[in-house]
Amino acid sequence: MKVRVTVMPKTGVLDPQGKAISHALGELGFSGVGEVLTGKVIELDLAETDPEAARSAAEAMARRLLANTVIEAFRVELV
Amino acid sequence: MKVRVTVMPKTGVLDPQGKAISHALGELGFSGVGEVLTGKVIELDLAETDPEAARSAAEAMARRLLANTVIEAFRVELV
Repeated sequence: MKVRVTVMPKTGVLDPQGKAISHALGELGFSGVGEVLTGKVIELDLAETDPEAARSAAEAMARRLLANTVIEAFRVELV
Repeated sequence: MKVRVTVMPKTGVLDPQGKAISHALGELGFSGVGEVLTGKVIELDLAETDPEAARSAAEAMARRLLANTVIEAFRVELV
């Protein structure tokens, strides 16, 4: 089954890419843009068919490889 | 209001980062991992309070800056 892992910077961690996007949107004439946060999304096609097992496998993958849990938070959704 | 833009490679576009993750997960002992797709997520805090106006502003931002629509597809969610 398909699982989506979304990895975002934790609160308080600098996000220079987000700052750059916010600035660039202003330069392009988009007004009213406040804070911008950027993260990554990883969609995994897992052979596992049990939803809870797939979720817990994806969480283990996120902790081990996909996210740096010192500075990043992740969430797992079944899709 | 907060808007989330998710940008993913279009079908058929090479995703070397996804391939690398799939390979690395196998090396780490995770089995049953098929295709892996990677994308980016941009969370925007917009001053706009009307949901439909916020969505259409975010779509304009995605087309103009956040996504390369030649090789990437995007979707917008209000969060």
